[in-house]
Amino acid sequence: MSSTRARSLVSKFPWASTPFIIGAPMRVMSGPNLALAISKSGGLGFIGPGAKPADIHTDLATLRGLVKDVSPSSLPASFVSPKSLLPVGIGFQLWDGDVDSAAQAVKEYRPCAAWLFAPRDGQADLDTWTNRLREASPDTQIWIQIGTLQEALDILQGKTRPDVIVVQGAEAGGHGRAHDGLGIITLFPEIADALGDNSGIDLVAAGGIADGRGVAAALALGADGVVLGTRFLASTEARISKGYQQEVVRATDGAKSTTRTMLYNQLRGTTGWPEGYSPRGILNRSWHDHQAGVGFEELKRLYAEATKKGDAGWGPEGRLATYAGASIGLIHSVKDAGEVVTELRTEASDIIRRNYSRL
Amino acid sequence: MSSTRARSLVSKFPWASTPFIIGAPMRVMSGPNLALAISKSGGLGFIGPGAKPADIHTDLATLRGLVKDVSPSSLPASFVSPKSLLPVGIGFQLWDGDVDSAAQAVKEYRPCAAWLFAPRDGQADLDTWTNRLREASPDTQIWIQIGTLQEALDILQGKTRPDVIVVQGAEAGGHGRAHDGLGIITLFPEIADALGDNSGIDLVAAGGIADGRGVAAALALGADGVVLGTRFLASTEARISKGYQQEVVRATDGAKSTTRTMLYNQLRGTTGWPEGYSPRGILNRSWHDHQAGVGFEELKRLYAEATKKGDAGWGPEGRLATYAGASIGLIHSVKDAGEVVTELRTEASDIIRRNYSRL
Repeated sequence: MSSTRARSLVSKFPWASTPFIIGAPMRVMSGPNLALAISKSGGLGFIGPGAKPADIHTDLATLRGLVKDVSPSSLPASFVSPKSLLPVGIGFQLWDGDVDSAAQAVKEYRPCAAWLFAPRDGQADLDTWTNRLREASPDTQIWIQIGTLQEALDILQGKTRPDVIVVQGAEAGGHGRAHDGLGIITLFPEIADALGDNSGIDLVAAGGIADGRGVAAALALGADGVVLGTRFLASTEARISKGYQQEVVRATDGAKSTTRTMLYNQLRGTTGWPEGYSPRGILNRSWHDHQAGVGFEELKRLYAEATKKGDAGWGPEGRLATYAGASIGLIHSVKDAGEVVTELRTEASDIIRRNYSRL
Repeated sequence: MSSTRARSLVSKFPWASTPFIIGAPMRVMSGPNLALAISKSGGLGFIGPGAKPADIHTDLATLRGLVKDVSPSSLPASFVSPKSLLPVGIGFQLWDGDVDSAAQAVKEYRPCAAWLFAPRDGQADLDTWTNRLREASPDTQIWIQIGTLQEALDILQGKTRPDVIVVQGAEAGGHGRAHDGLGIITLFPEIADALGDNSGIDLVAAGGIADGRGVAAALALGADGVVLGTRFLASTEARISKGYQQEVVRATDGAKSTTRTMLYNQLRGTTGWPEGYSPRGILNRSWHDHQAGVGFEELKRLYAEATKKGDAGWGPEGRLATYAGASIGLIHSVKDAGEVVTELRTEASDIIRRNYSRL
């Protein structure tokens, strides 16, 4: 063990508490209400990319309105950052993103952090985006999501340095490394060692975490903060269909009932992801028919039919894309996001105290 | 988070200290010297299955001699268990094991624990072995290694209950679940919840752990002890060829340089494993040629040639079976096993203290 990093990341977000809980920028589903609810309870919420790049402007405008509407007395005094950055982050999916539009949004709204992932041209794209966004808003932190040791080494060789690296393990739901992924129990320490203690980059952990145990484990690995996505799909503020959300709550056995596959992307017509990425999803009729040899055109026809069924399109016998992480078996109910954040902090803190008392 | 288990497991091994470090029963490589070195430093070492079932008698006889030879003053007073069990465990690979021979060995030598894995007929085999070994030595703990939620549910429905379940994550090197594996960050909590607080079964975590960060993370997940295998391949006491051991030290990037594959088994002529199991290994010329389309007979011929090269048969351009976990990137030198155990405890304890101080 060589890396013993200083825990300073949380202090850069004056409203945030330890353990530092972060809501992932899930595409469409992490909207302004979810992101703000997470930040209001002492975490850091991220707004995900929208269905199209311009949606980010709408979401940020909504968010700014929500922040203004919050009664000051209901917030920690520090809630509005001293530098008047918005108290939420924003996520950009680079391969189909628009850096001009992104820079404009960041300049206009000044989110406290911008989370970059899935570049088409690796570190070169990350350098371009980092430079453009820093020009647009110098105080906005740059976070970069990676899933392999090589990406960490590329960052060290890059022309820019992010403020934070998000290490995403193979258990994650969101798009990540398709074939060369690995659980964070091993991936995180190896990346931390590669970066060393003097990189100036903080590290947060993502993937497969849905309760205080996972949060405490990530902190033990050395994470400066812990990212959850799937857990927030089952929050009242998530921008998600009820049928989809209920499936996240219902499903158990993450190893057996989820897998990494491009099938849902293909059925929805989501194409163009760079090589080497795939999302994780809950298995349903689309998958089982695919495994049984049903042809793609027929699957697509059935998928289109299922989209007309509303919430009934999801579920074990449903067919609709149900992206989710392997942690679904740890999620048993829909809660307010703020309650989730508070519980995560309490659970993780209790575990840390318990293990300390056992030394 | 529902499971808050009492931490009593370590107290059942009077020579052992917290955090509770366990050496995995690696086939052939975990011999009496390695197992005893781990126990002598306050952990619990397991002897692995031998090349043939009868080898266990030889190894246990050697172990008993080693224990008698140890100068009492160099040991904790509690080292010899009050019930005069041997202070090491023993591992049995069930599918090609011999329960009669195993029961005889356990009766004769009374190891403190027997670790059962890879049954051909699932819980029925586990029940048979558990009953036979408990008849042979009632005080010997029964440990069962699993890698899926279903196996935990099967245990709850079984005719016998083990004392300990070893939850093995997908990052492990030893044979585990081939396709439905999952990292322990997610698998461990889901299995803990399925067992609940009243099963009477203690839980330990295995897979992908090679330093104090992983140990502390496993404890945070709720593990009553933490199992390491690959880390002990790089110990002076491991029964391993130098070429193999050096490869464990040399290799980095566990995601990229290891994979789960049956290829090494096939090349060595190790056949008969039950469906659904595979080991992880470090990739070498055998694998890369296989990927490039070289036929199996040619690979086997080249493998046989490589076996004549001694230590040069291993390495990136070598061809010999190099089973290892994904944690190889965290292992940088060969050390005495006792030093490894002491360092793991110190590192994990330091992390727990640090995270406590940050609350």
